[in-house]
Amino acid sequence: MATRKLFRNLLEKGVNAIKSQQPFEAKATAAAAVAPDPHLTPPEPSGPKILTSVPGPKSIELKERLNGIQNTEAIHFFVNYNESQGNYVMDVDGNVMLDLYNQIASLPLGYSHAKLLKVMTDPGNTAAFVNRPALCVHPPGNWPDKLFSTLLHVAPQGLHQVMTMACGACSVENGQKVLFIAYRNRQRGGMPPTDEELVSCVENKAPGCPPLTFLGFKGAFHGRSIGALAITHSRPVHKLDVPQPDWPMAPFPRLKYPLDEFARENRKEEDMCLAATREQIEKYNNKGTPVAGMAVEPIQCEGGDNHATPYFFQGLQDITKEYHMGFLIDEVQTGCGATGKMWAHDHWDLKDGPDVVTFAKKMLTGGFYYKDKYRVKEGMRIFNTWSGDPSKVALLEASLNVINEEDLINNMMRVGDYLQKGLHDMQVRFPGVVMNARGLGAMCAIDFCDANTRDAAIRHLRNKGVHTGACGPVAVRLRPSLIFKHHHADIFFDIFQSVLKDLQK
Amino acid sequence: MATRKLFRNLLEKGVNAIKSQQPFEAKATAAAAVAPDPHLTPPEPSGPKILTSVPGPKSIELKERLNGIQNTEAIHFFVNYNESQGNYVMDVDGNVMLDLYNQIASLPLGYSHAKLLKVMTDPGNTAAFVNRPALCVHPPGNWPDKLFSTLLHVAPQGLHQVMTMACGACSVENGQKVLFIAYRNRQRGGMPPTDEELVSCVENKAPGCPPLTFLGFKGAFHGRSIGALAITHSRPVHKLDVPQPDWPMAPFPRLKYPLDEFARENRKEEDMCLAATREQIEKYNNKGTPVAGMAVEPIQCEGGDNHATPYFFQGLQDITKEYHMGFLIDEVQTGCGATGKMWAHDHWDLKDGPDVVTFAKKMLTGGFYYKDKYRVKEGMRIFNTWSGDPSKVALLEASLNVINEEDLINNMMRVGDYLQKGLHDMQVRFPGVVMNARGLGAMCAIDFCDANTRDAAIRHLRNKGVHTGACGPVAVRLRPSLIFKHHHADIFFDIFQSVLKDLQK
Repeated sequence: MATRKLFRNLLEKGVNAIKSQQPFEAKATAAAAVAPDPHLTPPEPSGPKILTSVPGPKSIELKERLNGIQNTEAIHFFVNYNESQGNYVMDVDGNVMLDLYNQIASLPLGYSHAKLLKVMTDPGNTAAFVNRPALCVHPPGNWPDKLFSTLLHVAPQGLHQVMTMACGACSVENGQKVLFIAYRNRQRGGMPPTDEELVSCVENKAPGCPPLTFLGFKGAFHGRSIGALAITHSRPVHKLDVPQPDWPMAPFPRLKYPLDEFARENRKEEDMCLAATREQIEKYNNKGTPVAGMAVEPIQCEGGDNHATPYFFQGLQDITKEYHMGFLIDEVQTGCGATGKMWAHDHWDLKDGPDVVTFAKKMLTGGFYYKDKYRVKEGMRIFNTWSGDPSKVALLEASLNVINEEDLINNMMRVGDYLQKGLHDMQVRFPGVVMNARGLGAMCAIDFCDANTRDAAIRHLRNKGVHTGACGPVAVRLRPSLIFKHHHADIFFDIFQSVLKDLQK
Repeated sequence: MATRKLFRNLLEKGVNAIKSQQPFEAKATAAAAVAPDPHLTPPEPSGPKILTSVPGPKSIELKERLNGIQNTEAIHFFVNYNESQGNYVMDVDGNVMLDLYNQIASLPLGYSHAKLLKVMTDPGNTAAFVNRPALCVHPPGNWPDKLFSTLLHVAPQGLHQVMTMACGACSVENGQKVLFIAYRNRQRGGMPPTDEELVSCVENKAPGCPPLTFLGFKGAFHGRSIGALAITHSRPVHKLDVPQPDWPMAPFPRLKYPLDEFARENRKEEDMCLAATREQIEKYNNKGTPVAGMAVEPIQCEGGDNHATPYFFQGLQDITKEYHMGFLIDEVQTGCGATGKMWAHDHWDLKDGPDVVTFAKKMLTGGFYYKDKYRVKEGMRIFNTWSGDPSKVALLEASLNVINEEDLINNMMRVGDYLQKGLHDMQVRFPGVVMNARGLGAMCAIDFCDANTRDAAIRHLRNKGVHTGACGPVAVRLRPSLIFKHHHADIFFDIFQSVLKDLQK
């Protein structure tokens, strides 16, 4: 039986996740300096400024106050949002940090971008902010135009249906629902449901509520409502004590980095995972619990920034076609340009578009795209009161305009390349401390020798003015916003290097 | 097998829900006129103004356009939110309707209230609207104060823990999760979980994911994500084709109205439902799927505005205590004053506060309150990226100030009494057409002889300038916002009377 103290640690990190510490080695090279482009950089501080430890005394005081009414263990620090600008977050103690986490990868243009502020002063948007509509019943007159000029404008290839939702979990749940409905429609051969189905479903019974299942991958994170949670398999903290359906889980590849250096071993690993996925589907189909769909993240973010190659995802799509399942790509964290393409799955060269693509975070509104063939023919089946929020779509519109005008998706590709090279340089210089540098565009990560060292690195980085996030058992993830430039990367590497040197001591 | 056309009808309304039509009778009395109080009525049109049929040509054109990218069957009309004011909604064809539906009961102060518009121009709020925080990790510095001055200020008695969420379904799911965790903690006798639990939960397996269940009532609606949906039992349209866990469903009383006239029969019905609830719990507990909690709406809104008396809810609380279950009151639609009290359960005189109270809609932010004893001790267990939205709490703050300054909750009691009397008058004058007038404060409803007549009444009302909503098989529900006054009720009754006269012909 785990002790209470250990329980917290295990609950967060998972059993057997804490790697044993390895010896450190050191080398030193400075990251190449690249000049900022002042034309395209929004107003922001010239660099970090640290006045207190982080969290500082004011954050600690606020945390104690808030702790009276909710658990505050997850709070890093309290933020002065009025004074946070561009790539820099300022906490309530006046500490200014270069932000490489951005509200868990949720800010497309950093803090307080002028074009977003302008959305609020545009009289055409007032109503959207104050009179929140029930969008599926009483949409605003400009709603079709807004959806076409924003979400449809950047829709994944071949996906022409779209619904807005409040958040990522809700988007995943509704994407699953679309695929459950499609699976049953196919099983019925296009016939309407029987009276028995209509009656039984209201009582949670078959045949109306069918014994369908949905496949998720080990290491996945898709959200915390029960349907999204059932395909989430990363940490005990998300799932312990919550009843969950018996749905299949397949292994996600554990690749070696850099991917191209280990192409042969990685291919073998991916083939093994594809075969295991197939086995799981066969197993669940054969026991009368057909697998209606599969959800996968282009990068398993919460699970530790686990990558796979296009070959793997192509193979998954083939499997879904073979078994008449829906293929749901969860782009809640990877969508909106951070990988150097609008959607991470644009990197895969799929034969055919995915069936469902979910989004939230940097898209500012939640929602999902899906193919015309999965369109739900009856009203009110994919529905909720608010079904998203037009004020978020107004902010998305302004963001997409800036992203387009300033060519920020290509910026993510360029600065991502620079970040990846820099991280690789660090692992060469600090072997045994950091390893497995990896990334797709600017969504980068690096592993530490163990969880304690990783946690210490994040603390030290923060206290030196760089805010990053943990993911998986031993990784630090970088989630710059799209206005992150080479000179910001240089600031990060200077500080990262000094932290790694300290950790080596 | 149901035909495709019938399927749509059944999917929406449920099998056996369409009552047979009854003969009409007519009487005529005018509703009493009460003068408006201009001091407390925000700027708004003096009455409805109808230029086209509703939906008008512009709404129909927009619907066709939007229909290319999503199912639009549920759309009533498109709204000109910039021109909607107070109790009046203006559609895109310029039709002005007295709004007794208010975005499915979601507008506390009607449209474009000056105090809400002011929130947007307050420089202190800019950051909250533009820089959306991950509230559980990087809350704004004013977050504790904002929560104390808004949500804690109006917290149900005895509930001092609160979490904000994006929407109602998410609030219910997290409330369930708190109660699942509490149930397991009690089963463990306060000991930490075993390693086996920590490992198994990641794979959706017991013992980590325990076979706990959650009880819902027939006719209930709690949301559409899988956990909230599993305790929703109103219409096939919500549930068909979605896999659902085998969780218990108990009958909700079907009372006779007016409640006091049928006190004896109603008591018998409620006793029967309490006994059946107990039976369900015993049954699920005995088969190794313990019932960890129970969710109930103070009024089953979506299910047809089904009321129960305080006796029933007191009885449910006794049952939850007896079986060590959590008692979750879903106040998503009933909360925020519409019943004449801040929370509908304030009408019940419970021995002890409920364990969890969920909210959304007129509260503008989703979320839930819960008792200190259920506080989840470990961080990150009740958590999501956004966990609500401070801009909604800023709007809530302004709303609560207006509600307090203008004594609007008592207004709901007074105008609700007036509405209920008027509806009762209508059923006396139009027997066989309308019946079962009922209400709690201003949350009122009346049944029609059958679904077709109800649907026709809603269409006719709309075409004469009054917007209402359907619920259940045959009811029209009135969901005025808190600024609805006696003179608005008079306008409604004049038009309702003329519609009922037409329907009688």
